[in-house]
Amino acid sequence: MTDTPSSRPPGFGSDNVAGISPTILAALAAANEGAMPSYGADTLSERVEARLSALFEREVRVLLVSTGTAANALALSVLTPPWGAVLCHADSHIENDECGAPEFFTGGAKLMHVAGADAKIDADALARAARLGRGDVHCVQPSCVSITQASELGTLYSLEETAAIGAVCRDAGLPLHMDGSRFANAVAALGASPAEMTWKAGVDILSFGATKNGAMGVEAIVLFDPARAGELAFRRKRGGHLSSKMRFLAAQMDAYLDGDLWLANARHANAMAARLVAGLAGIAGVEIQGVVEANMLFVRLPQPMIDGLLGQGFRFYTERWGEGVVRLVTSFATSESDVDRLLEAALALA
Amino acid sequence: MTDTPSSRPPGFGSDNVAGISPTILAALAAANEGAMPSYGADTLSERVEARLSALFEREVRVLLVSTGTAANALALSVLTPPWGAVLCHADSHIENDECGAPEFFTGGAKLMHVAGADAKIDADALARAARLGRGDVHCVQPSCVSITQASELGTLYSLEETAAIGAVCRDAGLPLHMDGSRFANAVAALGASPAEMTWKAGVDILSFGATKNGAMGVEAIVLFDPARAGELAFRRKRGGHLSSKMRFLAAQMDAYLDGDLWLANARHANAMAARLVAGLAGIAGVEIQGVVEANMLFVRLPQPMIDGLLGQGFRFYTERWGEGVVRLVTSFATSESDVDRLLEAALALA
Amino acid sequence: MTDTPSSRPPGFGSDNVAGISPTILAALAAANEGAMPSYGADTLSERVEARLSALFEREVRVLLVSTGTAANALALSVLTPPWGAVLCHADSHIENDECGAPEFFTGGAKLMHVAGADAKIDADALARAARLGRGDVHCVQPSCVSITQASELGTLYSLEETAAIGAVCRDAGLPLHMDGSRFANAVAALGASPAEMTWKAGVDILSFGATKNGAMGVEAIVLFDPARAGELAFRRKRGGHLSSKMRFLAAQMDAYLDGDLWLANARHANAMAARLVAGLAGIAGVEIQGVVEANMLFVRLPQPMIDGLLGQGFRFYTERWGEGVVRLVTSFATSESDVDRLLEAALALA
Amino acid sequence: MTDTPSSRPPGFGSDNVAGISPTILAALAAANEGAMPSYGADTLSERVEARLSALFEREVRVLLVSTGTAANALALSVLTPPWGAVLCHADSHIENDECGAPEFFTGGAKLMHVAGADAKIDADALARAARLGRGDVHCVQPSCVSITQASELGTLYSLEETAAIGAVCRDAGLPLHMDGSRFANAVAALGASPAEMTWKAGVDILSFGATKNGAMGVEAIVLFDPARAGELAFRRKRGGHLSSKMRFLAAQMDAYLDGDLWLANARHANAMAARLVAGLAGIAGVEIQGVVEANMLFVRLPQPMIDGLLGQGFRFYTERWGEGVVRLVTSFATSESDVDRLLEAALALA
Repeated sequence: MTDTPSSRPPGFGSDNVAGISPTILAALAAANEGAMPSYGADTLSERVEARLSALFEREVRVLLVSTGTAANALALSVLTPPWGAVLCHADSHIENDECGAPEFFTGGAKLMHVAGADAKIDADALARAARLGRGDVHCVQPSCVSITQASELGTLYSLEETAAIGAVCRDAGLPLHMDGSRFANAVAALGASPAEMTWKAGVDILSFGATKNGAMGVEAIVLFDPARAGELAFRRKRGGHLSSKMRFLAAQMDAYLDGDLWLANARHANAMAARLVAGLAGIAGVEIQGVVEANMLFVRLPQPMIDGLLGQGFRFYTERWGEGVVRLVTSFATSESDVDRLLEAALALA
Repeated sequence: MTDTPSSRPPGFGSDNVAGISPTILAALAAANEGAMPSYGADTLSERVEARLSALFEREVRVLLVSTGTAANALALSVLTPPWGAVLCHADSHIENDECGAPEFFTGGAKLMHVAGADAKIDADALARAARLGRGDVHCVQPSCVSITQASELGTLYSLEETAAIGAVCRDAGLPLHMDGSRFANAVAALGASPAEMTWKAGVDILSFGATKNGAMGVEAIVLFDPARAGELAFRRKRGGHLSSKMRFLAAQMDAYLDGDLWLANARHANAMAARLVAGLAGIAGVEIQGVVEANMLFVRLPQPMIDGLLGQGFRFYTERWGEGVVRLVTSFATSESDVDRLLEAALALA
Repeated sequence: MTDTPSSRPPGFGSDNVAGISPTILAALAAANEGAMPSYGADTLSERVEARLSALFEREVRVLLVSTGTAANALALSVLTPPWGAVLCHADSHIENDECGAPEFFTGGAKLMHVAGADAKIDADALARAARLGRGDVHCVQPSCVSITQASELGTLYSLEETAAIGAVCRDAGLPLHMDGSRFANAVAALGASPAEMTWKAGVDILSFGATKNGAMGVEAIVLFDPARAGELAFRRKRGGHLSSKMRFLAAQMDAYLDGDLWLANARHANAMAARLVAGLAGIAGVEIQGVVEANMLFVRLPQPMIDGLLGQGFRFYTERWGEGVVRLVTSFATSESDVDRLLEAALALA
Repeated sequence: MTDTPSSRPPGFGSDNVAGISPTILAALAAANEGAMPSYGADTLSERVEARLSALFEREVRVLLVSTGTAANALALSVLTPPWGAVLCHADSHIENDECGAPEFFTGGAKLMHVAGADAKIDADALARAARLGRGDVHCVQPSCVSITQASELGTLYSLEETAAIGAVCRDAGLPLHMDGSRFANAVAALGASPAEMTWKAGVDILSFGATKNGAMGVEAIVLFDPARAGELAFRRKRGGHLSSKMRFLAAQMDAYLDGDLWLANARHANAMAARLVAGLAGIAGVEIQGVVEANMLFVRLPQPMIDGLLGQGFRFYTERWGEGVVRLVTSFATSESDVDRLLEAALALA
């Protein structure tokens, strides 16, 4: 590699442009000792399941996969029949950013939108949607609900909001999935326990992300209802997502959980976002959009400032969220000096 | 990890119980420098495509995925419509060991068996199968052919055999897929060039395996016809197989190709299989099954010898290939002393 | 059958509660002469294709199926890949009333909504939607457009409106499907030629309905581009929609087209709707919703009137379109006295 | 129609070249009285369910569809998950003649062959197949069994043979489907009760055919376990197989069952096959293949005789079952004189 990243302006495009946490990288090397049973029959996989059971204060079943899209689509595939509807927000990742993976894995279920501010579905709107066409053979049947924590806009469901949704789901007999590709950032921000934020509030399956927060490529599908694990195992294999050398996925997740690395990484990413907000708020012409709760922020910048920053090599997405609005994402690897470089450049362009 | 592998009897169950080649592990660490564009827009991914183009003496398009099942099923999905038939051997991996992944990814195509000795399809039988039901709306339509090199029995298609199949495919207008999860072992054994063994003989898409031969988890779908790359890219994402931190898949493949590590690893594995054969052939009561060409052998052992070896902790599969027949697989990580331990134990049980 | 329909209050629930036009019934009997080749190789099927070619002033390919849902879903299945999006109105039949048949037949494509008044998509909104995510591997790809003529609200696309949509489709490279389960009513109302209303305006495939307008159960998928007929034939068989005794589907369609029965039936149904409108408009407390263009109307009635009519045995749907709004549908079988009975009853309840 | 069938040599190609039984045609006309609720909420549909419950001596649930392929594929879709295997004979209709409809409706399940003579699966072979790969995540899972009565070769499962298969299914926990597109011919030949031949022997779902035996186009999916009816109803709609004017499918089935028309038709067809056998057996050079049990026979004829018959306009299939073997199928519409014309022509060509 010929580029020297340290001298280049830092990227705020996504948390997946970052590399691997050093501890996780070391765990890969440590796992590379001798032969080990393949396909998840290794001791590391076992340990990961135990660790996640401890973390969630309940016996859980865990299936590891290498991408968040796979985690979400597989999770949904055991919650809805092909003629079902997955109730979700129009701004969810499963709707917009997975090229129809949920439709593929579910055999053609329909994603139906439930309204709500800040990319979060509203419990009352959900209660209405959950009744649509129930029992009418002409209509796809509401079959499960999926929420994203933290959301695609970086916003958070409070414990109360999640519980309200969980209550609607329970009343309607609909299982609840949580897309937690940034679950760590949500836990770090809310200060609640993983158990409170999930099964205690009614969540049945969680996509517990690690890739965006320091792993190389591993996500855990966490089943609070073990009964679905058998079907999910066949679906994972059939989807090409059963890694033969599973120990290396398990090693990543093991290190991610060990000593609460996952929380430390997320707290750091959130802190860097807060630092960005604090700095940007003081620059003339910059408007922070909404409340910043995790590791993602949306700000409206003057167009010359946007052009200037991009021209200098700073990287971030723009144009998708309204005129002049850019998205900035921080990660475990974002340093204070990365943040400060952006702030200085913005100030100079103000 | 509490086990001490060096002291345990070695495993010959599969080449996927091995870990990672040290060079490839080092490449993961080297790739972990700073931010890098995600989803394959990184420089390592670019380099891998260039390397494979050089290796195959032709411009190829490459899509990396993390499992062999994904590589095969995705490759087939761009070669057959849902109402098509994939012509393959009854003993192929896609038929027996992927839990229906080809059916899933193709939208329900049918795998139709073509006969042939030694887990290899026969060109004449293929020519007949290729005509079955053509144009008859009641019948699934022969749409592509898939062969495995090296086969599931460790046997090899000679250049002539592959070319004969390629000729039938060309005549019948059927694209040809090669499942090369052990392609390296085949190249090492045949001494032919990768180009001769693939597109020059009529292969359109190759699943170029690395995981079984020293990588952590990466396989390249190599397209000799670039026109299919666009569709395949959507299908890969939709299947949840587009890794966000793609650089780490690319880094593995890059190191695998660098300095012909892939060939060196495969030659070593093949040599260990040959050493096993040579040793076992001299032990009373042991019958080598067929000709051993790559890194896999089938031997009939007296039942007490099987029981004794398993009892001592040696690991291998049995019972699937007839009474008393066991399968032994070697890998890049199999040492001469591993082989010799098995031979000594077998001799003692003879 | 023990009920005596003539004495019962007539039903305005849907045009599919009607029976079969006498001429079409007679054609079934006439077709029942001796043996005839099955699966569409009969002379009646041939004649239907010739008749539709003449009607549309162009050589068309025709595939007959027995339901409108099958016609729509099969038509869409040759216009979009599984990772595609079908752009349609949120109030379309394919979105709301087919239990996900389009998703099933397309292998999981996504139906994306395009806004527009009166259940018709707006050409400008379509132009924007057609660009969404084009070429982005994370997004389903806009792949075709589907419009309904007459729409689910009984409204009509003018020739200009259809042509505007056709122009957007052509610019964007998207094929255009028309759900014409009530195409006859639209033709009767607009007074334009079938050619003008379809391929001359950019329509590539038409679901040409007959069931709602006097047939027992037959719909024609009319392909203005013959190239898609081969694929469609396999998909029809695979979907279980290739009738063995196809002559009886063909006989219905043949009689439907003969002597313009289809137009006469539709004109009658439209006239009965107009008679309803005229009569209802003069009743106190009744509000006609929108403009009535074909054989369907929406009216807001006082709740006591709704309750009274239903209590007397009149049948129609309510509650789906806002408080007090009922839908009334007429058919070829609706008589003037049917209409007048409803009007008298409503007047008495006013 | 310009041809005069009575003067043309009769067709023995299939029982689906015949038309409609006069009684059934009359029932269509009788059902065409006034408005009737659509989608199966009519009184005729209700009566059909009652009639089939009486016929099978048990409360059954019935879903009507218009083709045999739809009946089979829908039935299988509620018996196997996508990762399942349907165990069936290699010579079954679902394997060879439905263009992959079972794969389509099941979401990609695999049809696995179970051996057996005369196109019937062998109970012992089934017992072995039922255990293949059970619980192994790499393998599709044996999930249901499908047998054909009468078989594609016109042979019959005896009560004992069906019961033996039923017992294997029960032991293995696999539901049993019977493709009864020629169930009437089997009942007529065996002289057993429909109940004995189905649920009493372990059958869970029956495709009860009518189309080949005198209906225009209707097949009943008969569920001996009502619990699957709900799912099946959604799948039927989603497959485009819920007819709006269902009364006309019901009317056919109602007339088919009334006064045992179904049995009378089948007995006639079987008798005509027996007459053919008796006549052909006495002609030099003709060899009857196997035992003729229902309405289908296979005979080896001298090639000049085949050519001569086809040349004179007789229609039947050849070339699919070995050199010189032709298939002759009789139906309710085959007359004694049809049979005698063929016999005379064959004799003249002997």
